[in-house]
Amino acid sequence: MKLAPSSFAPSCFPDLPIVNGVSAATCSRGFYAGRDLERDDVFLFTFDHGTRCAGVFTRSTTASADVRWCREALVSGGGYARALVVNSGNSNAFTGPKGVLKNQATLEAMTRALKVPKEHCFLAATGVIGEPLPDPNYVGSAVPGMVEQLASPNWQACARAFMTTDTYAKGAVRTCEIDGVTITLTGIAKGSGMIAPNMATMLAYIFTDAGIAPDLLDQSLRTATQPSFNAITVDSDTSTSDTLMVFATGASDAAMMTDSTDPRLVTFQKALSDICLDLALQVVKDGEGASKFITISVAGAVSDASARIIAADIANSPLVKTALAANDANWGRIVMAAGKSGEPVDLAALAIWFGSVKVAEQGGRSPSYDEAAASAVCARPEIDIRVKVGHGAGQARVYTCDLTHAYIDINGAYRT
Amino acid sequence: MKLAPSSFAPSCFPDLPIVNGVSAATCSRGFYAGRDLERDDVFLFTFDHGTRCAGVFTRSTTASADVRWCREALVSGGGYARALVVNSGNSNAFTGPKGVLKNQATLEAMTRALKVPKEHCFLAATGVIGEPLPDPNYVGSAVPGMVEQLASPNWQACARAFMTTDTYAKGAVRTCEIDGVTITLTGIAKGSGMIAPNMATMLAYIFTDAGIAPDLLDQSLRTATQPSFNAITVDSDTSTSDTLMVFATGASDAAMMTDSTDPRLVTFQKALSDICLDLALQVVKDGEGASKFITISVAGAVSDASARIIAADIANSPLVKTALAANDANWGRIVMAAGKSGEPVDLAALAIWFGSVKVAEQGGRSPSYDEAAASAVCARPEIDIRVKVGHGAGQARVYTCDLTHAYIDINGAYRT
Repeated sequence: MKLAPSSFAPSCFPDLPIVNGVSAATCSRGFYAGRDLERDDVFLFTFDHGTRCAGVFTRSTTASADVRWCREALVSGGGYARALVVNSGNSNAFTGPKGVLKNQATLEAMTRALKVPKEHCFLAATGVIGEPLPDPNYVGSAVPGMVEQLASPNWQACARAFMTTDTYAKGAVRTCEIDGVTITLTGIAKGSGMIAPNMATMLAYIFTDAGIAPDLLDQSLRTATQPSFNAITVDSDTSTSDTLMVFATGASDAAMMTDSTDPRLVTFQKALSDICLDLALQVVKDGEGASKFITISVAGAVSDASARIIAADIANSPLVKTALAANDANWGRIVMAAGKSGEPVDLAALAIWFGSVKVAEQGGRSPSYDEAAASAVCARPEIDIRVKVGHGAGQARVYTCDLTHAYIDINGAYRT
Repeated sequence: MKLAPSSFAPSCFPDLPIVNGVSAATCSRGFYAGRDLERDDVFLFTFDHGTRCAGVFTRSTTASADVRWCREALVSGGGYARALVVNSGNSNAFTGPKGVLKNQATLEAMTRALKVPKEHCFLAATGVIGEPLPDPNYVGSAVPGMVEQLASPNWQACARAFMTTDTYAKGAVRTCEIDGVTITLTGIAKGSGMIAPNMATMLAYIFTDAGIAPDLLDQSLRTATQPSFNAITVDSDTSTSDTLMVFATGASDAAMMTDSTDPRLVTFQKALSDICLDLALQVVKDGEGASKFITISVAGAVSDASARIIAADIANSPLVKTALAANDANWGRIVMAAGKSGEPVDLAALAIWFGSVKVAEQGGRSPSYDEAAASAVCARPEIDIRVKVGHGAGQARVYTCDLTHAYIDINGAYRT
């Protein structure tokens, strides 16, 4: 089925700058042939010698063969990267020995064509789970042709090549100044359903010309992930393929960052955190069937971790999501969802706001409760919900979307 | 809105026998007036002197005032019961001091009209969360009239009086022989949405003429709850009002059971477990919007607790539920849901069956995979899914329903 674009789709793909040291190419293996989508379904990125990388991945115990390879390569390759191949249409998850063979064939094609060590090559796949690939060389056989076409990245073509139920291609850019030099971070992401990242995300890649040691890059990425990709949920389902990686070519003129006390790291961290949040919110706004973008902010919890659990339980509640889809300021369901989390909630201090409209306070409906005002907030395309659960210092923010008929249509039809 | 009956609705309410020592009455406070529902919305049960009781309740940290009172009364009253009043239309959850006042007024009316101690009186309420009651005596003022009409229970009228989005009244009966005497257990339940009981359930009450000490009754009830009410989920949302209570009048001629090694307890336990499962499955089959009844059986886990978490994560997955609604044997989503649980899964041993059709084994799609056969199973109204996750002895079974457009319609419209 051809999906209508999300109402949050940008009018056009952003104009993304080149990142020195990064080349790319895309091609089609025919996964989307005949589906009315003029798009490719595989991309190859290559990186100059010396490029550092870091990654965070799904915590799913049924993670894909590609995720398992990336984890292994990050360790055996010491955090250096030369190439990345990603395909859509088939997630290579739960494909058993055949999935491993596909990875071996792809990696062999990459090392042969690019003359780079296998452990500096990374993979990902997204699409149907458990569907065997037609032959192990299905992706690998596309590598030589892409190598011939390597050029400065066509970011939009790359961002389209790994879409599945996404209705728009997702890209973002941030820059920061380090040593008087402009550092560029360019990123692309995909994701729409099966979004409840657990320490990682759907597929997202960020490329920068910053020079930074692998351990610092890893630390920066983990810091950026928590309030961005780990703070979004579409449907509470965690993918087998969640992957967020950053590649730092060091091709800028700024000196390398190798010391964890380097004050320039703060500048880099802010830019990396910003681009992660930008991409993560694009994923939520393209959530399957989403008609509303919802921010849940929880404060007053006993800890940030507790606030995160409460915010996620509110964001994942089908009853909260269906009410908001219907413009219903059904705040009782927020009380319910906060309660089901099992985390400490001080009922007498519990307060809830829709936008600036306070609907509940001191253990009951607010004396100033105004149903019409609250409903008006819920009729907006973007809804802010704030929940105070006590007098603690713990806080967290989670981003989600509503649950609509379109989600059911998409997920009843997706595979076939 | 008037809901169409679930396709699983029985052709008629079961013929339930009297339980000696139990009387009842119902009345209407007008909660459902004008909604095309010829039904009452409050019931009163009274029990002969000496009736023992036990209860399990929601673990929600935002539990209703009624749940908090029942917990207190079970302790202060020593596990004895004389009366029970339940209303629908308003859950009395997150109603602050007003909710406590409503309970006080209701309890005063019960103690005055029935001449029984307050701590032997139990309450429950179900309906909208957070909506203040018009006046504290709203339910209490109905008590004297109901006391005048007390009679042998009209079970169907009682089962209808506490329905909310339920599309049919739920009742069940079991009997067992103890000391050559027939013991009767009669139960009623309500529940349709916000169903993911956590150590308890929606509202369900079981009445028996067995004689049994409160501590043994409590133990028996907890044993019966785990594989029944704690094994069902409609939408992963846990109610603020979940309550399951059993009242044992001791009015039969069988001798009292007071010793935990009494072999007659085994007989009673089986009957109690059976009626709990019967009522729990009636709740799932009336799940909001449900078109299919789904049984998820997990085996081979490292423990029963681990199997329960995996089975619940599969049952709660919106992607699994929407696929089944569309007759799609999308077993990859079962792999995903098993993986997101974080519980140990041995990928090489993972196997999945839809009915008797094996679709996955040894870490990949089954060599004998037959899409048409699997889809045919998924087109049935009742679907059995078996998942083997390893070689352990842990197993569990969870019951759920599919996620359909009707769920979204009901929950966008329910409050208004």
